[in-house]
Amino acid sequence: MDQLQELLAQLRQFVAERDWQQFHDPKNLAMLLASEAGELLAEYRWVANDQADAVSREGERRTRILSEVGDVGLALLLLCERIGADPVAAMRAKLEINRTRYPADVVRGKSDRPVLR
Amino acid sequence: MDQLQELLAQLRQFVAERDWQQFHDPKNLAMLLASEAGELLAEYRWVANDQADAVSREGERRTRILSEVGDVGLALLLLCERIGADPVAAMRAKLEINRTRYPADVVRGKSDRPVLR
Amino acid sequence: MDQLQELLAQLRQFVAERDWQQFHDPKNLAMLLASEAGELLAEYRWVANDQADAVSREGERRTRILSEVGDVGLALLLLCERIGADPVAAMRAKLEINRTRYPADVVRGKSDRPVLR
Amino acid sequence: MDQLQELLAQLRQFVAERDWQQFHDPKNLAMLLASEAGELLAEYRWVANDQADAVSREGERRTRILSEVGDVGLALLLLCERIGADPVAAMRAKLEINRTRYPADVVRGKSDRPVLR
Repeated sequence: MDQLQELLAQLRQFVAERDWQQFHDPKNLAMLLASEAGELLAEYRWVANDQADAVSREGERRTRILSEVGDVGLALLLLCERIGADPVAAMRAKLEINRTRYPADVVRGKSDRPVLR
Repeated sequence: MDQLQELLAQLRQFVAERDWQQFHDPKNLAMLLASEAGELLAEYRWVANDQADAVSREGERRTRILSEVGDVGLALLLLCERIGADPVAAMRAKLEINRTRYPADVVRGKSDRPVLR
Repeated sequence: MDQLQELLAQLRQFVAERDWQQFHDPKNLAMLLASEAGELLAEYRWVANDQADAVSREGERRTRILSEVGDVGLALLLLCERIGADPVAAMRAKLEINRTRYPADVVRGKSDRPVLR
Repeated sequence: MDQLQELLAQLRQFVAERDWQQFHDPKNLAMLLASEAGELLAEYRWVANDQADAVSREGERRTRILSEVGDVGLALLLLCERIGADPVAAMRAKLEINRTRYPADVVRGKSDRPVLR
């Protein structure tokens, strides 16, 4: 069993022990995910682009960022689990679409590429 | 090599071929993540809680949801890659914290639990 | 001078006294706005649709919601101020567009209307 | 009647004519607001901080930004209307709190000030 599968099993157990499935419908989980993504965003809101790499490696700030990364990831897994989606398969499929949508020779080095949807 | 590692290698190559590392500082990637989470959220905004499971399994809507799940996941991986974080380790650490923060016998079945931060 | 203009003048002074214009470029303010909207969202994430009105009027929760409403509003005003946009004019223009986009006799009572963009 | 009150009256009529009050509980409106804030955020995600002012004044981009500003503002007004909150009063109250929380002489010119909550 790979590490993501193992984590998923632990997460399932965590939720079941707390009887939280009743609150974890997909709508609520999408809200959880978006609000956690907002907290991660907040860590960078006053940081200049050219400081963002350094700031991400600082002691206390890094701890908070990793904590938010964990929250976002767990929210995404909870949603995938609930709707019966395989997160890695969904990412792989989207990467494939993006390969076609953004041909390397057309978009190379361009920041004004069409938004990644 | 497990499937997440394999996907990460492909994602790295995708970005390198497009010379997009220059735009992918952690600040911009946190913005990407939050805006993709907002698009996923949009799929559920007019859906009632008790319809959310059914709606997540419908044809066209499911396709859009899986596409947004893929986008959110890819954005999270890009950020982790950039800041040198292991997403599964971050999630595992946060789940451990949540176990302590929300003891099963205290929060069981309660929706007014402290927010999952 | 109407009340929104008066508030804008106070907000301008608040920022100037702190010398914060340097951090308040439109990108950072859009991040501020999105993260504050995420905090407001968090207040509702475990609330069922049919409880959301009642919960919005409860003592402590209402205080938090009003506080987040204030944050979101201030962030929006800061952004408008910075980019030279009139928020009321922008809303009025969008409402006009929505009138055309969603004709009353076509969308009346439908939750699956096209998303409000 | 000031311009915000006039807009609110038009917005109320717009919703009533479409019989949309049934979908506009505060939870759904908080989701609308967050997803619209995410769309506004998306306009700035590949823009460097020092380009953000210029980009906000460009033709097509400016049109999209103003459109998203309108959406965010309308969503905020809809929520305020639904929960019986006065948006300007909420902003004024929050600005007052921020004055105390961030004394000018302590935070002046600092980007690492405590986050604006």
